[in-house]
Amino acid sequence: MRNDNGIKIFAGTASREFARKICGHLAVPLGESQVITFSEGNTYVKIGEKVRGNDVYIVQTIGIDPNNEFMELLFWIDAFNRASVNSVTVIMPYFSYAKADKKDEPRVSIRARVCADCLEAVGVSRVVTMDLHSPQIQGFFRKPVDHLYAANIFCDYIKALELGDYVIVSPDEGFAKNAGYFSHKLNVPLAVGNKRRSAHDEKAEILNLFGDVSGKTAVIVDDLAISCGTLKEIAAALKKNGAGRIIAFVSHSPISDKGVEALTDSEIETLYTTDTIYNPKVLSCPKIEIISVSELFAKTIKIIHEKDSLGELFL
Amino acid sequence: MRNDNGIKIFAGTASREFARKICGHLAVPLGESQVITFSEGNTYVKIGEKVRGNDVYIVQTIGIDPNNEFMELLFWIDAFNRASVNSVTVIMPYFSYAKADKKDEPRVSIRARVCADCLEAVGVSRVVTMDLHSPQIQGFFRKPVDHLYAANIFCDYIKALELGDYVIVSPDEGFAKNAGYFSHKLNVPLAVGNKRRSAHDEKAEILNLFGDVSGKTAVIVDDLAISCGTLKEIAAALKKNGAGRIIAFVSHSPISDKGVEALTDSEIETLYTTDTIYNPKVLSCPKIEIISVSELFAKTIKIIHEKDSLGELFL
Amino acid sequence: MRNDNGIKIFAGTASREFARKICGHLAVPLGESQVITFSEGNTYVKIGEKVRGNDVYIVQTIGIDPNNEFMELLFWIDAFNRASVNSVTVIMPYFSYAKADKKDEPRVSIRARVCADCLEAVGVSRVVTMDLHSPQIQGFFRKPVDHLYAANIFCDYIKALELGDYVIVSPDEGFAKNAGYFSHKLNVPLAVGNKRRSAHDEKAEILNLFGDVSGKTAVIVDDLAISCGTLKEIAAALKKNGAGRIIAFVSHSPISDKGVEALTDSEIETLYTTDTIYNPKVLSCPKIEIISVSELFAKTIKIIHEKDSLGELFL
Amino acid sequence: MRNDNGIKIFAGTASREFARKICGHLAVPLGESQVITFSEGNTYVKIGEKVRGNDVYIVQTIGIDPNNEFMELLFWIDAFNRASVNSVTVIMPYFSYAKADKKDEPRVSIRARVCADCLEAVGVSRVVTMDLHSPQIQGFFRKPVDHLYAANIFCDYIKALELGDYVIVSPDEGFAKNAGYFSHKLNVPLAVGNKRRSAHDEKAEILNLFGDVSGKTAVIVDDLAISCGTLKEIAAALKKNGAGRIIAFVSHSPISDKGVEALTDSEIETLYTTDTIYNPKVLSCPKIEIISVSELFAKTIKIIHEKDSLGELFL
Amino acid sequence: MRNDNGIKIFAGTASREFARKICGHLAVPLGESQVITFSEGNTYVKIGEKVRGNDVYIVQTIGIDPNNEFMELLFWIDAFNRASVNSVTVIMPYFSYAKADKKDEPRVSIRARVCADCLEAVGVSRVVTMDLHSPQIQGFFRKPVDHLYAANIFCDYIKALELGDYVIVSPDEGFAKNAGYFSHKLNVPLAVGNKRRSAHDEKAEILNLFGDVSGKTAVIVDDLAISCGTLKEIAAALKKNGAGRIIAFVSHSPISDKGVEALTDSEIETLYTTDTIYNPKVLSCPKIEIISVSELFAKTIKIIHEKDSLGELFL
Amino acid sequence: MRNDNGIKIFAGTASREFARKICGHLAVPLGESQVITFSEGNTYVKIGEKVRGNDVYIVQTIGIDPNNEFMELLFWIDAFNRASVNSVTVIMPYFSYAKADKKDEPRVSIRARVCADCLEAVGVSRVVTMDLHSPQIQGFFRKPVDHLYAANIFCDYIKALELGDYVIVSPDEGFAKNAGYFSHKLNVPLAVGNKRRSAHDEKAEILNLFGDVSGKTAVIVDDLAISCGTLKEIAAALKKNGAGRIIAFVSHSPISDKGVEALTDSEIETLYTTDTIYNPKVLSCPKIEIISVSELFAKTIKIIHEKDSLGELFL
Repeated sequence: MRNDNGIKIFAGTASREFARKICGHLAVPLGESQVITFSEGNTYVKIGEKVRGNDVYIVQTIGIDPNNEFMELLFWIDAFNRASVNSVTVIMPYFSYAKADKKDEPRVSIRARVCADCLEAVGVSRVVTMDLHSPQIQGFFRKPVDHLYAANIFCDYIKALELGDYVIVSPDEGFAKNAGYFSHKLNVPLAVGNKRRSAHDEKAEILNLFGDVSGKTAVIVDDLAISCGTLKEIAAALKKNGAGRIIAFVSHSPISDKGVEALTDSEIETLYTTDTIYNPKVLSCPKIEIISVSELFAKTIKIIHEKDSLGELFL
Repeated sequence: MRNDNGIKIFAGTASREFARKICGHLAVPLGESQVITFSEGNTYVKIGEKVRGNDVYIVQTIGIDPNNEFMELLFWIDAFNRASVNSVTVIMPYFSYAKADKKDEPRVSIRARVCADCLEAVGVSRVVTMDLHSPQIQGFFRKPVDHLYAANIFCDYIKALELGDYVIVSPDEGFAKNAGYFSHKLNVPLAVGNKRRSAHDEKAEILNLFGDVSGKTAVIVDDLAISCGTLKEIAAALKKNGAGRIIAFVSHSPISDKGVEALTDSEIETLYTTDTIYNPKVLSCPKIEIISVSELFAKTIKIIHEKDSLGELFL
Repeated sequence: MRNDNGIKIFAGTASREFARKICGHLAVPLGESQVITFSEGNTYVKIGEKVRGNDVYIVQTIGIDPNNEFMELLFWIDAFNRASVNSVTVIMPYFSYAKADKKDEPRVSIRARVCADCLEAVGVSRVVTMDLHSPQIQGFFRKPVDHLYAANIFCDYIKALELGDYVIVSPDEGFAKNAGYFSHKLNVPLAVGNKRRSAHDEKAEILNLFGDVSGKTAVIVDDLAISCGTLKEIAAALKKNGAGRIIAFVSHSPISDKGVEALTDSEIETLYTTDTIYNPKVLSCPKIEIISVSELFAKTIKIIHEKDSLGELFL
Repeated sequence: MRNDNGIKIFAGTASREFARKICGHLAVPLGESQVITFSEGNTYVKIGEKVRGNDVYIVQTIGIDPNNEFMELLFWIDAFNRASVNSVTVIMPYFSYAKADKKDEPRVSIRARVCADCLEAVGVSRVVTMDLHSPQIQGFFRKPVDHLYAANIFCDYIKALELGDYVIVSPDEGFAKNAGYFSHKLNVPLAVGNKRRSAHDEKAEILNLFGDVSGKTAVIVDDLAISCGTLKEIAAALKKNGAGRIIAFVSHSPISDKGVEALTDSEIETLYTTDTIYNPKVLSCPKIEIISVSELFAKTIKIIHEKDSLGELFL
Repeated sequence: MRNDNGIKIFAGTASREFARKICGHLAVPLGESQVITFSEGNTYVKIGEKVRGNDVYIVQTIGIDPNNEFMELLFWIDAFNRASVNSVTVIMPYFSYAKADKKDEPRVSIRARVCADCLEAVGVSRVVTMDLHSPQIQGFFRKPVDHLYAANIFCDYIKALELGDYVIVSPDEGFAKNAGYFSHKLNVPLAVGNKRRSAHDEKAEILNLFGDVSGKTAVIVDDLAISCGTLKEIAAALKKNGAGRIIAFVSHSPISDKGVEALTDSEIETLYTTDTIYNPKVLSCPKIEIISVSELFAKTIKIIHEKDSLGELFL
Repeated sequence: MRNDNGIKIFAGTASREFARKICGHLAVPLGESQVITFSEGNTYVKIGEKVRGNDVYIVQTIGIDPNNEFMELLFWIDAFNRASVNSVTVIMPYFSYAKADKKDEPRVSIRARVCADCLEAVGVSRVVTMDLHSPQIQGFFRKPVDHLYAANIFCDYIKALELGDYVIVSPDEGFAKNAGYFSHKLNVPLAVGNKRRSAHDEKAEILNLFGDVSGKTAVIVDDLAISCGTLKEIAAALKKNGAGRIIAFVSHSPISDKGVEALTDSEIETLYTTDTIYNPKVLSCPKIEIISVSELFAKTIKIIHEKDSLGELFL
């Protein structure tokens, strides 16, 4: 009997829970598979069901243990190709090395390009990811990259919070353009944090705040939180400038122990983030609330599988 | 007799003058070569001297006629490789397609990556360029890219102008980080232009100016001027905010006719730019003054040829 | 809904009219797309409709502005691949750089191979073209090339002209083999032009004519006309040898201004050529008549799309 | 001044001590470099000195933390290439994934080939390694692999132990050919362990011992020890068959906690192994003695750098 | 009419008979094709029917004239790809160069990898083969390899022979693991040949036999027979150790003239082998009986074509 | 001691004699090497001396046993690369598959491109060859091809023959352009054979002769002789047209038995050819005289090794 090429989704160890949610949305079973870490440290992967001729989807975030997660992903792609799949699409909700996208010092590696080259060397067909640190990273791949955004989901969520008089805040100039999208979509003002060196003192940096936040709820938006240092600082500045409640929406949260501390100590009431990374520190932090983007990824997989257009999912 | 592998520099049609200046600095003759555009439109290139086993340098900017210039460059690289050179380094003072570095709409090309792939497909060994639109573009290449900056040359020039009380101005947030380098190096304050959509009117955009410019000379810095629209606008805003003299330093100037008009009509006294692009419109515009970066490129070639470190040339 | 993968044809700027004719023959709409040349010279392309999973056909001749046309084509292929098409077939009615197919001097480029490498570097799936200058060029590609011939269409046309007693003429020995196909198919004699250096004078070249043309209509055939110098010369020789009416059939006509002059001054009554190149000089020349090969290309696309055999279209 | 291209050796985090020993043998300083593991998990590498035009050697074993070590190695190679080295030779004393060299079940990855492909994708020039699990792995690389053997060093060491009447023991048939080399070189008899399923019981396996060991010192040889299960079993069988003292020589020792236990409990007096892997469990185990192969690697680097022949280093 | 993509099987000159048997099992006609060896030695191939868009299977063993057979195969793959097939699967029942899988001396070629690289360079999609000399060879390919085993067919055949009390014999330690599979599957004991150097004489080698064969029928199994020297020797040892009838099962038989002599002279009653190689010496030798594996390959092609799982065909 | 990188020349089995002559001209010893054809048909190659870091030259014609010769060549290149040479230049005096350079029928292979791809897949650095069947074949390689011509050597030889009144003859139109080079260089007239189908009879072909040969010695020139059918025919036509002595100069002679017969029966007095192919049939034919081109190849190797320009060797 001919293969009917239904959707087949598999999970790497970094995204088993997330893949299960995607499967739930699509009402397909999660593909059978097995991963072992041998006692000498090697990672072993094995596909547990028929895939010949299929268009398969392997869900693996490159998150808080990025090297182990990335090597496992390479082995998955190789295993799928050697098992004669028709195509292998990598669903990579977060791509940790996306931050390493340039050579801003002499004699360093452009690690995001190294990752792209390795994925292509083992035969990836396509990558689906969300909120890359810089949009240029798509150009590190010769294969197609479908790039999703958390912004629309966050906007809907913000509206549902009925915050009254509020303002969108970009913590720095680098994220101002993206924050502008929120401001425009939600039709509320924008404020931007702005670090400047004082003219008289080489080392002192002053955090200015452009825009009026006095008496308003402040909604900080950003793509990434690790040490939460910038978030804490901008929240302090917002408070100093008379802001009321302060909440934050951050796409990816590979937050460290220090980051959880900083957040706990900060003026931020709640940090809303997504489930692109499985991070126990995030799950146990009372100040953090998780908004799942699994349905967004499920929709995307369906569109790709049916050769439809991403259309409205594209920002 | 064994080849002594001295420096051999060749020029494409887009950079003959610039290449001659480089050769002058290095006291080497410009390599013999010939380019013909046949009547049916094809470009033909021919190397006019012995190059077997040499490390050659081909100078060709991708400037105001980018497609013709780029195809010619591909033919040069192929001709050098088929002539058995040891390596071929492309000296590309300006790379016009660097602006096309992301897929910010559905179904477009990442044209800077296309160019990188073609250069590598025909066997480029290394690229030397200046002030790329985004630093991520280095990652579009697998081959090494030596990236130069006009900033130090511009800073020296600004100092020599003895402007008195002055301020560095970034026309928008995108260039603020780079402008900060000037401000820090020259130890003067920074101002930043900031376009914001008005909250009540979808289309109206207001140009704010962060930072105090009143009574000061304003030195706008940017990487690129084409239509000079942004420059004209920021100059008007500076004037409105009480700035005194207004001058600008822009790395590359593929300025259009409309751009020359806008500049002429603007509050900008003088636009200082480099000679990375041969642009007759720039040469004939009385408001534009050219600062040559040919010596910077000459030094770089010497360092590369002698396998030394770029060291201080790296920003 | 699953993509039905109907035929999707797109046009580059060099072949919009030709692509529209193809679409007419196939009764499919021309795909939505947009090309912009920015004021600084860069070319921008954007696909205007859903193509994910499709086998698309992009029609772009490499004609009288070959570098701009070729770069645009590379961007199209990249855009289609990044938009996740299943395959992208380039319909290139004329390939100007096909003439640059060898290294007949030291230190030149084999430009046709450069073009082939670039097309493959950005992911072309297949090329369809017509009457390449030399058949070896198919071997410059690793991907399949479907090579069409104008000869059958020209033969049908010649028969319809009811020329009475006529002879096929090859302007030189290089095209004699191809001209022989016409002669055989039409069952009429062949004559061949033959340039020889005189034994006593280094520079003098004499144009001999092998074969009897006296009192007959002469039908010159060739693949290419640019300056029309050879055509004018052979027509003069034909006249001298007593030929009656003289007409010519030439596959591609990237004719220059000088070429139109030469043709006008020549003994040639009418030059029949195809519409592989959009050339205003050709359209406005009263001596030139155009025979469309759009239906041949339309049939070929249909065959390719339905995975049928080119069969009788192959010479 | 021209680069003199002296030997430049750099160390990855997995082999800093080993690289320092190599440098000691060659009397060259260890290259300056820096590795950081950021709090979100990413690995960062930076070369700390001039390398343009150099033939560099990066020492990094793929040992007991193989994924982190391998990713770091990829970043090193990329950093060296982007810094314009002439070549980058990977000194990989142990290659953990060499064991994963075949597809002995359906739908698994050939992980050693994945590693080879990634190393070549980022531009490795050559690999130097020791005692690969199977010799076929050289064929996974297109680039040259210089393969060293610990056998001669072990043989010299065994002779120096003055063991009296002794026998070389291969723990199983898989290593019998290699053990034969020891037996031949040392001119002593060989014994081979041999596991056989009993004819009457599906699960029971009996460990036979081919060859006479009674009253002799037994010297077990093998390429690898992880759980030390096989070593313990063969030692028990040797004892049962009347062997006297039992010692073992094993090339690589990624021994686990369980392995240290098994070894401690076993009849083996001393396990001699090399320093190809930095493994704290090995260093602290009183039954294990380390024989450095750093001089072997130092000699090899010198030979490679001077373009000499490995000659006698090849087994 | 759309291509229905039925199974299309073509035969190279080395496997015409074998391909015809496969077609018989699948009830499909053998594809039309033509091979000519020109008088100057060149091989020419031509596909004789429509294949555009098809998944084609080309059957060509690399057998007793391996270089001619391999080059022909490369030309077939190229011809299929240039004819726009969807995929080309190589059915290579025997791969002669599989034996050349390592660099066990300095300065030799890894010829199996050379073959793999050439097959991939011309665009092979997948390889199906049987009983490769070492399983690592799959890792020489980036493309999928479907690896079949003769063992199950041989086991069924052995059972059908009703040999009474018998033992499986591996001629040496290298094949012991594979022989173990037979022993386990047939539930009979295993014996293993074992060559050892005598302790007192450098050159003398003694062939021991591990396991009890006295009074039993001996069934030698191996992957390959060329000179039949090992087979003859092990048979003699078996006889000396009291074995009764001696027969052998060998997967591939590129047996030479000398091999036929050795076999004829040996104690072996019958050598059972497969038809993976067309070898006239084998066909005319009265001691050799051929067991066809064409049905195994036919089943495999059907499974691949229907995108099913090899499942039980995998050992 | 550092490698001095002197010229190292090795010979494949097809060109041992030719390589020895080259070594004689350069006063270097022929490199040590070994080739074995095993009894099962496999070819084995082994380099017998140190080559690490060297620029090596492997001389192997692809002549009258092209598949065996080509596979051996691939193994040589692989062996050299795995032995860490700096570069491997293939000296291929004749390239038999150069004739297979186009797809002039549907569904055939472009075999010359297949060969080029395989040579590049195993890492060839450069190819040196002579009188390729069509100059486009250089474009089948991405690596540099140094293309030599026998014409100058032949012209010197013709002059030395002091033939009196003579004419250069091209056997057909295809070689007319090359024959013109001889005619021009020797300052004698040219005649050209010309096959034409008679107008009234589909099958009859008449061999015309353009140019006056009456009473003159005729010197036929061509690139290749296999069956000598064309040579015999043109010689008959020359005789019929009153030519006196008839001799021929042919670059490569993979002449078959039938070819020797045809030549013997023909009006040709002597066929002069080169030693690019070792062909016993040629050596034993009394009508054939061999002119060595080994010195031309020796000079070329010297020029390449010293990174000089081919200059006057280029036609």
